[in-house]
Amino acid sequence: MQFSNRAEKIKTSALRELLRNADRPDIISFAGAFPSPKAFPVDIIKEITIDALDKNAANVLQYGSTEGYPPLREVIAEYSSSKGLNTQKENVIVVSGAQQGLELVAKTFLDPGDTVILGAPTYPGGIMAFKLFEPRFEAIPVKENGIKVDLLEDRLKRMKSTPPTKFMYVVPNFQNPSGATIPTRNRKMLYDLVCEYDLLILEDDPYAELRYEGKSLKPIKALDTEDRVIYLKTFSKTLAPGLRAGWMEAPEDLIEKFAIMKQGTDLFANLLGQHIAYGFMKGKFIEPQIRKIIPLYKDKRNRMLEALDGSFPAEVKWTKPEGGLFTWVTLPSHMDTTELLGECMEQKVAYVPGSAFYVDGGGLTTMRLSFGYVSDKQIEEGVRRLSTVIMKSSQTK
Amino acid sequence: MQFSNRAEKIKTSALRELLRNADRPDIISFAGAFPSPKAFPVDIIKEITIDALDKNAANVLQYGSTEGYPPLREVIAEYSSSKGLNTQKENVIVVSGAQQGLELVAKTFLDPGDTVILGAPTYPGGIMAFKLFEPRFEAIPVKENGIKVDLLEDRLKRMKSTPPTKFMYVVPNFQNPSGATIPTRNRKMLYDLVCEYDLLILEDDPYAELRYEGKSLKPIKALDTEDRVIYLKTFSKTLAPGLRAGWMEAPEDLIEKFAIMKQGTDLFANLLGQHIAYGFMKGKFIEPQIRKIIPLYKDKRNRMLEALDGSFPAEVKWTKPEGGLFTWVTLPSHMDTTELLGECMEQKVAYVPGSAFYVDGGGLTTMRLSFGYVSDKQIEEGVRRLSTVIMKSSQTK
Repeated sequence: MQFSNRAEKIKTSALRELLRNADRPDIISFAGAFPSPKAFPVDIIKEITIDALDKNAANVLQYGSTEGYPPLREVIAEYSSSKGLNTQKENVIVVSGAQQGLELVAKTFLDPGDTVILGAPTYPGGIMAFKLFEPRFEAIPVKENGIKVDLLEDRLKRMKSTPPTKFMYVVPNFQNPSGATIPTRNRKMLYDLVCEYDLLILEDDPYAELRYEGKSLKPIKALDTEDRVIYLKTFSKTLAPGLRAGWMEAPEDLIEKFAIMKQGTDLFANLLGQHIAYGFMKGKFIEPQIRKIIPLYKDKRNRMLEALDGSFPAEVKWTKPEGGLFTWVTLPSHMDTTELLGECMEQKVAYVPGSAFYVDGGGLTTMRLSFGYVSDKQIEEGVRRLSTVIMKSSQTK
Repeated sequence: MQFSNRAEKIKTSALRELLRNADRPDIISFAGAFPSPKAFPVDIIKEITIDALDKNAANVLQYGSTEGYPPLREVIAEYSSSKGLNTQKENVIVVSGAQQGLELVAKTFLDPGDTVILGAPTYPGGIMAFKLFEPRFEAIPVKENGIKVDLLEDRLKRMKSTPPTKFMYVVPNFQNPSGATIPTRNRKMLYDLVCEYDLLILEDDPYAELRYEGKSLKPIKALDTEDRVIYLKTFSKTLAPGLRAGWMEAPEDLIEKFAIMKQGTDLFANLLGQHIAYGFMKGKFIEPQIRKIIPLYKDKRNRMLEALDGSFPAEVKWTKPEGGLFTWVTLPSHMDTTELLGECMEQKVAYVPGSAFYVDGGGLTTMRLSFGYVSDKQIEEGVRRLSTVIMKSSQTK
């Protein structure tokens, strides 16, 4: 039995093993990027599901179109147009969760050795999807304004044109894991750079709707006069991840190419999830749902930041995101969050060590804390436990 | 914008264009491999869905395990064990439809240039999935007993060992498109050959349950003393394709590798589909459901064979499958079913030309007729229309 090169290279990570027990009920987990079950609009989902099965079972249960359920593509186009994008139904393909969008883009563009530009840190699901197609990575530091544009420009100047650089991966709002949002001015500079260097941007925007303060920013896609932006969205954060429903927006000819690649991949996205997403948007439930979950998560973020303020030693730093589900913690330079995790798991608190978000082994002193899933009490108690381990470790060094 | 090699090579087929209108209501389509909507157990699905959302919404709507919903893996293992396999929960991974299983196997094993052995004809979804990973194909003729074992053995003797041959793809029961079933004796010979030549078998078995006469045969997997068989199953034919729920059975270490590959691909399969499949198996609805749909499809098959007997000229041949959803028609050698399709579409009847099922341009005189989706009247009228076109074409040559 001889695996492919890609399968040989992708191993179970030690981290996965370490975090295997993080979902045990006695452990307070800031690790998983789970939404709160309180945010799930169960009754509306139930109502829509019953209605779809009553009126439309022959469609819901049958084989579906690879591009997606046509009425869903239509309402998605309307939704995006209302957010300042110029989206027609033909610019939309429904995917089996945004993760599949990442994989389809990689599959469509990457040969082994091609370059992908991404942030350091960045979303590990992106790293996983891209790695399946054996690229090399150029990792650009991410700070409070997202990817450092000046460093990116330097790097682009020095990069060779063969093997080619195919795309840059960015999470524009409340990035997973750093919580950073790219300001409008930097969005423009990033777009100008990809035009100058003839690249594409894969703009992965799951958190835009979860903004707790400040003004919503238009996606980079809104600047896209040269058809260089693939815009990736999901229903996982606004509706429910279990449905596996997301979408991509791109020029029509690229959507057709994605559809051909998706056909061999899984034929089409499950139709119950698509019908639920459709019923949700068509019935105008989406805006009230977003208005309902914002205070829920805003409160959790506030409690998290207050707990950190109250418990963590002064030499520890963390980000204060305007939205999303994460804060990014940086410990003093002599500390290693991967090493600390074992002790934290013994103290029954979990997080994801920063190294998981780097392709180049960086981030040793950092950790991501997710606050979406945990209860108020757990936030307080979990941060207290973390703090105890950090202070103990700080003293022994 | 520069695509990957795989994306460059995979084009929209002329066939896809030709069949684009096959789902128009005025066209009688024997083209799609759709199950009958009458076969969908809508009421049970509705009941299970409501129950899952009432009692288990926090699980159904949340992120799920990449290997699949654990209780579903458990009941699948029980189901397969009852069919003569030695399956534990750890040998099962749930996939987003069997199509994803094909893709995951290809992704896990194929580097560009590696060899895949498959039938001629074979299921085009397999061809599509494998092509994404740029293999070369060795196509072995399929006759009434499936892949010709003697020809396979000859070919194996002559094949070089580099680049390596990774697996053989077979559909053991009522193959799509030929309707052929591999007899027990040939299953044993195929298995002995893959052992001798150190290969794997990807055994894709969506139709086993749809047997209308004769004795059920154990899958090749039941012979698998050397851990060489990956067994692929789907709920699409017994339950509903819209759910996108299927599974693979393999040795535990291979299941773990598939899970790593699936994680980057789409994280996990949608949970409503998984909970419905679970409720269906746990509630013992699966055997009654199979008993219900067998007479439905058997009757359609009988009507199809009778209509062909009554209308088609003597020089046309077709298979008489003991199960499944297809009959495979061979026209006289001067006729080309791709050429005929245009005229047939004008006469408002559609089928899939045989060439779609070959990797090497064969099958020009053949066509696949699906009888699962069409009504009794449509079978009669569709075959009459086909017959008229064939006879007219026969006279003009």
